[in-house]
Amino acid sequence: MSYFNDHLDQIVRELENGYQSSELFFNRAGLERPNRAAIIDILDDFRLLLFPGYFGSQNPTRASAPYFAGHMLTQIHEKLYPQIRLALAYHEGGLTESVNARAEEAATQLLLEIPHIQKLLLIDVEAALNGDPAAGSKEQIIFSYPGLRAIFIYRIAHELYIRNIPYIPRIMSEHAHSRTGIDINSGATIGEYFFIDHGTGVVIGETTNIGNNVKIYQGVTLGALSTRAGLKLAGKKRHPTIEDDVTIYSNASILGGNTVIGRGSTIGGNAFITSSIAPFSRVSVKNPELTVDDFGEKAYEASGNA
Amino acid sequence: MSYFNDHLDQIVRELENGYQSSELFFNRAGLERPNRAAIIDILDDFRLLLFPGYFGSQNPTRASAPYFAGHMLTQIHEKLYPQIRLALAYHEGGLTESVNARAEEAATQLLLEIPHIQKLLLIDVEAALNGDPAAGSKEQIIFSYPGLRAIFIYRIAHELYIRNIPYIPRIMSEHAHSRTGIDINSGATIGEYFFIDHGTGVVIGETTNIGNNVKIYQGVTLGALSTRAGLKLAGKKRHPTIEDDVTIYSNASILGGNTVIGRGSTIGGNAFITSSIAPFSRVSVKNPELTVDDFGEKAYEASGNA
Amino acid sequence: MSYFNDHLDQIVRELENGYQSSELFFNRAGLERPNRAAIIDILDDFRLLLFPGYFGSQNPTRASAPYFAGHMLTQIHEKLYPQIRLALAYHEGGLTESVNARAEEAATQLLLEIPHIQKLLLIDVEAALNGDPAAGSKEQIIFSYPGLRAIFIYRIAHELYIRNIPYIPRIMSEHAHSRTGIDINSGATIGEYFFIDHGTGVVIGETTNIGNNVKIYQGVTLGALSTRAGLKLAGKKRHPTIEDDVTIYSNASILGGNTVIGRGSTIGGNAFITSSIAPFSRVSVKNPELTVDDFGEKAYEASGNA
Amino acid sequence: MSYFNDHLDQIVRELENGYQSSELFFNRAGLERPNRAAIIDILDDFRLLLFPGYFGSQNPTRASAPYFAGHMLTQIHEKLYPQIRLALAYHEGGLTESVNARAEEAATQLLLEIPHIQKLLLIDVEAALNGDPAAGSKEQIIFSYPGLRAIFIYRIAHELYIRNIPYIPRIMSEHAHSRTGIDINSGATIGEYFFIDHGTGVVIGETTNIGNNVKIYQGVTLGALSTRAGLKLAGKKRHPTIEDDVTIYSNASILGGNTVIGRGSTIGGNAFITSSIAPFSRVSVKNPELTVDDFGEKAYEASGNA
Amino acid sequence: MSYFNDHLDQIVRELENGYQSSELFFNRAGLERPNRAAIIDILDDFRLLLFPGYFGSQNPTRASAPYFAGHMLTQIHEKLYPQIRLALAYHEGGLTESVNARAEEAATQLLLEIPHIQKLLLIDVEAALNGDPAAGSKEQIIFSYPGLRAIFIYRIAHELYIRNIPYIPRIMSEHAHSRTGIDINSGATIGEYFFIDHGTGVVIGETTNIGNNVKIYQGVTLGALSTRAGLKLAGKKRHPTIEDDVTIYSNASILGGNTVIGRGSTIGGNAFITSSIAPFSRVSVKNPELTVDDFGEKAYEASGNA
Amino acid sequence: MSYFNDHLDQIVRELENGYQSSELFFNRAGLERPNRAAIIDILDDFRLLLFPGYFGSQNPTRASAPYFAGHMLTQIHEKLYPQIRLALAYHEGGLTESVNARAEEAATQLLLEIPHIQKLLLIDVEAALNGDPAAGSKEQIIFSYPGLRAIFIYRIAHELYIRNIPYIPRIMSEHAHSRTGIDINSGATIGEYFFIDHGTGVVIGETTNIGNNVKIYQGVTLGALSTRAGLKLAGKKRHPTIEDDVTIYSNASILGGNTVIGRGSTIGGNAFITSSIAPFSRVSVKNPELTVDDFGEKAYEASGNA
Repeated sequence: MSYFNDHLDQIVRELENGYQSSELFFNRAGLERPNRAAIIDILDDFRLLLFPGYFGSQNPTRASAPYFAGHMLTQIHEKLYPQIRLALAYHEGGLTESVNARAEEAATQLLLEIPHIQKLLLIDVEAALNGDPAAGSKEQIIFSYPGLRAIFIYRIAHELYIRNIPYIPRIMSEHAHSRTGIDINSGATIGEYFFIDHGTGVVIGETTNIGNNVKIYQGVTLGALSTRAGLKLAGKKRHPTIEDDVTIYSNASILGGNTVIGRGSTIGGNAFITSSIAPFSRVSVKNPELTVDDFGEKAYEASGNA
Repeated sequence: MSYFNDHLDQIVRELENGYQSSELFFNRAGLERPNRAAIIDILDDFRLLLFPGYFGSQNPTRASAPYFAGHMLTQIHEKLYPQIRLALAYHEGGLTESVNARAEEAATQLLLEIPHIQKLLLIDVEAALNGDPAAGSKEQIIFSYPGLRAIFIYRIAHELYIRNIPYIPRIMSEHAHSRTGIDINSGATIGEYFFIDHGTGVVIGETTNIGNNVKIYQGVTLGALSTRAGLKLAGKKRHPTIEDDVTIYSNASILGGNTVIGRGSTIGGNAFITSSIAPFSRVSVKNPELTVDDFGEKAYEASGNA
Repeated sequence: MSYFNDHLDQIVRELENGYQSSELFFNRAGLERPNRAAIIDILDDFRLLLFPGYFGSQNPTRASAPYFAGHMLTQIHEKLYPQIRLALAYHEGGLTESVNARAEEAATQLLLEIPHIQKLLLIDVEAALNGDPAAGSKEQIIFSYPGLRAIFIYRIAHELYIRNIPYIPRIMSEHAHSRTGIDINSGATIGEYFFIDHGTGVVIGETTNIGNNVKIYQGVTLGALSTRAGLKLAGKKRHPTIEDDVTIYSNASILGGNTVIGRGSTIGGNAFITSSIAPFSRVSVKNPELTVDDFGEKAYEASGNA
Repeated sequence: MSYFNDHLDQIVRELENGYQSSELFFNRAGLERPNRAAIIDILDDFRLLLFPGYFGSQNPTRASAPYFAGHMLTQIHEKLYPQIRLALAYHEGGLTESVNARAEEAATQLLLEIPHIQKLLLIDVEAALNGDPAAGSKEQIIFSYPGLRAIFIYRIAHELYIRNIPYIPRIMSEHAHSRTGIDINSGATIGEYFFIDHGTGVVIGETTNIGNNVKIYQGVTLGALSTRAGLKLAGKKRHPTIEDDVTIYSNASILGGNTVIGRGSTIGGNAFITSSIAPFSRVSVKNPELTVDDFGEKAYEASGNA
Repeated sequence: MSYFNDHLDQIVRELENGYQSSELFFNRAGLERPNRAAIIDILDDFRLLLFPGYFGSQNPTRASAPYFAGHMLTQIHEKLYPQIRLALAYHEGGLTESVNARAEEAATQLLLEIPHIQKLLLIDVEAALNGDPAAGSKEQIIFSYPGLRAIFIYRIAHELYIRNIPYIPRIMSEHAHSRTGIDINSGATIGEYFFIDHGTGVVIGETTNIGNNVKIYQGVTLGALSTRAGLKLAGKKRHPTIEDDVTIYSNASILGGNTVIGRGSTIGGNAFITSSIAPFSRVSVKNPELTVDDFGEKAYEASGNA
Repeated sequence: MSYFNDHLDQIVRELENGYQSSELFFNRAGLERPNRAAIIDILDDFRLLLFPGYFGSQNPTRASAPYFAGHMLTQIHEKLYPQIRLALAYHEGGLTESVNARAEEAATQLLLEIPHIQKLLLIDVEAALNGDPAAGSKEQIIFSYPGLRAIFIYRIAHELYIRNIPYIPRIMSEHAHSRTGIDINSGATIGEYFFIDHGTGVVIGETTNIGNNVKIYQGVTLGALSTRAGLKLAGKKRHPTIEDDVTIYSNASILGGNTVIGRGSTIGGNAFITSSIAPFSRVSVKNPELTVDDFGEKAYEASGNA
């Protein structure tokens, strides 16, 4: 190992220069960043709280349920409050009284929303059951549907987004993205009875509005038309509006902040839409012409494919 | 933390109401649901058993291999039998003698299939080696190809699906989905020498039939035409049939229970197919016309992109 | 459990036959394969080293940074050297002095590149900040952007690929693929200021060349035209060249080893390109004709969708 | 490794013969033994419940305390009930309805005693504070005194002993013994305000009676005179009775079932007592004569010790 | 489980009353107690730092040693400072600026002592090697001698004791006690070249003074004569002084704050000493008379012992 | 934290000097020491193998027992062989072919002894059952008796001791010592049907010989008379011989290499014996005279003890 040992000091010196040359590593001294693993752990706790008896080893009974709920809420609060505090303090460059107060407020307000979020998620489960012939049962959906998992995390993260908590909503939504392939920006607004089937590749942008009773399939993008203006676009409405009762089939792209898919419409697979669609429309891609070249069994075998 | 403490009792009360108001949390008292983490753990054990020396810290030798195999089989049985038993009992609302017997039967029959499944997987490895110029070696495929991982889990889960075990096959296939982006419903029927390259976004529906020597690429959907009828469609053939020796390139969609891709055909990338294709066809999308706007280096730089 | 017990010996015998019948399990006696979990652990250590204060529990200060760097480098070397050694020895069928020397060389040379890789990654972070209106801050990108995570792992794995280390680069890139949905072959060549947005479904093939200041979106494939010739194609240039300052929107496919996307071009979403594009082109898919069927609110409700 | 490989089958055969030849390994088929690790885990949970804020990461507040208590009680019950059930079923050779009922009864009755046990332990803490000049504070005693730890475990285990639960009380008391060097048989009867200082080597036998306000030091044995009759002595009173207000200094041995140390007595260090002592006695060992051989500094140095 | 469920609320209520009725659980709100597991973890880190290459998986080389040292010191400081801070704040009832400053000072001063402590421990290793014919090598002593382990922890804890840090020194010394059976109060003063052989049952009281080159065996008590006055004795010299070059054999007890064992003396096994011994004395217990009752082989066998 | 940061470099420099100044840290470059945690892990595996169904989560059946045994043996060999190899190579200053061969030999020979060791331990269990009225059952002894645990570890470690493996036997026996308070040097020779009751403080020296059917109690020392000659005594017979059928009661000390306790004898508690005892003797300490000072209830209460 002498080759390595001979160069260790040199690599350290170069890396240290790298650390020192960026404002990303040492500035804001004494202010820790929030902890990604802790935030993912909080999401796991929320899942236990919202769907008791499905994910952990605990199966609360009617008698023990309130203790379970109170304990989980306390535990989540004990973990969530300091992460929000770190995020605010790091972002604002100091740990002030105001940071403490706003962190406590945001953590508690999110927890106050939990009963309502549970109601919404049970409605989303209903939507999945009715929308997927392979679902079998609500239990199966709660156990394993990636769409429900992504929506559950979105509904939590959104509560922090609207309270202007930095970093944490994105860490949450990217965790969902990593586990499900579904990328819902926590800034989006999503109504009741929402179902994403299969889901891999779905992208729902920051300023998207989605009404009630909307169903989307794998590969659907609800995106921006162009992001060439970069940070100047931050905060602008860049993503579409999907009204109530809309179904969007797989791999369709709907782009642009002024694009509205009107109520009751159905968007066919692979559609590429950049302007509004009237309510109650059924949009399908006129199938791109296919060239079918019938070369016959003999030719096939001659080509060495058999 | 007084803000939180002041509201703790209120949130508990509301959440408890939420728990009580649904049949999903407390009904079927005394019946535990199967455990998702335990099922994923079983899949990891199967991987060690099927590919000894690749994933764990153990490298069985010719002398120790039978002990390794016998030990792993026993351990898998010890974990799998209770999960199947929980799944059946919860689904049927009671833990009967019949449940015990069927759980033991299903667990053992799956294990009896394992030597055959190993043979199938070694053929799938061969398919990957021949199908991917970047593969390098069979070892590389076993170590890291997501396609093989998804197929391995499918071949296990399918044995439980055809024995009508609830919940567990879906938990298994969604675990594969989460790790690979490949969503193969455990109800599908898949032949020998199957290869999925890259794989992210692949969806293979519950009633799909796939023959031997089929190769598919990332983003391919083998799906249903419409699922508007919801649970009424459960059990109906809703997904296509892919005959032997077919290649399907990336992002193609093949939809519908009556759609048959005939033997020896090749389906080009991005094709959207909703009716049958004769054997030995070569189907390619007539490239959607591209608009190429040559604005020149000067214009480009003037636009501020350089 | 007598059903299982009665068949245990039989399953063991059959599985043992399976093990014995393949060259994949027992040959090359005494040579262990590299360990997938160890390699993923090394990637986690690299992340801590490159982005101190973001992922672990440690927050090095200016005073402690060199110790942190030296310790992490030593620890990575202690883990990486044996894995490279195992990979080379297994691949070449023997543990020779040459294997030891090349393993030490490759491990140390990768570590010597780390300060340069950190510089490249900070430029990639800059690219993400300027390319995504939703980014908010560089910290947010480092914490959670899957594109950056995939590129970070690619830049590590590539150093091993160009030094002909077997197995490990692919294990690394498939780990990135599993966590991000982004599949960058470690053989690709990628310039500075690279940004992948959302990223799920992106495939970048082994012989792809990507210049500086390139931005690509989810679902983009930079692939081969055909892989029918299998292993014979290994090493041939099969994937496209993307020159500097190119943007490729979502779900576009660019295929073929002779295909060059000229400098400064923009490729629209869903484009399917199999031949070269001149510099400074703006390519957009002529939208496939959409059939819009306005059936009106009443019809909609009559169909039972409301 | 061929030496090992050549003998593996032989060792297995011999060990299997060993297993088969004893009734300790395979009889009582289908009946699992209780799990030692699970029982130790239950003791850790009890410690968290009885001394909240001292051992775990949770610091219940006045608002969250009832939820914490209810949750811990539920969790302990979920772990304790099955262990008691296993212990009874294994001991009695079958899992009957009566076993289930008695297990539930014993688990719940132990939990009903917990508030009383907490009161007793707080009195024991008081005894330690008043008995040890080095104690400093009650918190210090709760955190770290081995005497309190051994008494806490004894008070739990005793509740199971008096309910005739097999195996578990002994596993508990030997865990305490291993961690503290203090061996209190769970059958002993111990009053209030009990303090063991230092404690290593203390042995308190199964039929010992200890009154209130007793203090004992390291190395004290409260034992049997002879155990030559083995199992025939089981259940007989073999160990002494210590009345109220007694202090026993280090390494004293008090032996025999008829031996009574009368109220208010003090027993000096190293005393060896096999018959009763009247109340209010002060017993001290007449110091064994010491031989003091003054060999002087010169002799000392000459002997090479300096 | 209805028996438990029926009583859960009742037990919670009683336990809550228990919590509320003591000042030990909720007072000093907002002030967490130090964490026992964290303190034990710090001791493990110190052991890695002081004896690199013996306990962890890391084997620093000459090249990497300074990075290892710097990293471990930083890590220990990161863990130790907050524990000292919690201990001081909890003890003094508030988290003041002074607490922060004193915690930082105590943590850093302990770390500044580490190089000196390492020197002392290497001398203690030398003492063990020369004092125990079974030692074999210094490595064996470092790996496994409980005496060295207890002394190592004592030398750390003592630095905190003399700086008046509450709780933590005792948690440290009781951890050593639990693992080794050796109970050294962190307040004792101990010189160089100290060796404890076997060690189980050794007790060294808070105000003991031990000179250089002292060797003691298992079961030795250096204790107080009486502790009847309880807390009033706190701080008084209650334990003996052992001058240089003294050996104390097993199970000897030396008691009292005025008792001095003069330089160069040897104290025989089982001696019970409560007054001073002149220098260069050899003290041995005049063997208590033994009653030897020769009952012969026949009698023995007749008694059923054979 | 500036106080620490200001001194970090200084402490590192001093510690590095400490490392460099001793031959214990960097010499024998490239030779790792054996790993204490790995050795303890091996002991845990042996316990599972010898007492299946008692300690782990596995309960082998008659059908699975041979697979369990073969798997555990393989796993132990995989862990044990490298530790022995490290120990030999480090001790001899080089990793030679001879080291490899002797390590393989010692590991396999130990494993070949395992069936015999299991037989011996079952006899030891019998001895405990017959020797302790509180034992209750053999299962209870296997689960929790510290005496059995210490003997089990001794019987393993002894096989390595007699094969001259350095470091590892002592690490094993000190682990037993730490967990049980029983310190049996792995060099001692111990016959069949051996029972240690309670055990805390027992010391059995390196050259002790113990016959069959011997029973000893807590605090018994079988030691050397003097160790003043240090390493020169290594290998000499320094500890006593205990012949068959001897019982030694608590806290007795038997010292010296020429001391023989003759067959069938009983040694009373607290006896201090330095010369041989004839067979079939019953030795009891003539009780040291006790001073009993009856001060009466009134005096007692006046002294403030009531």
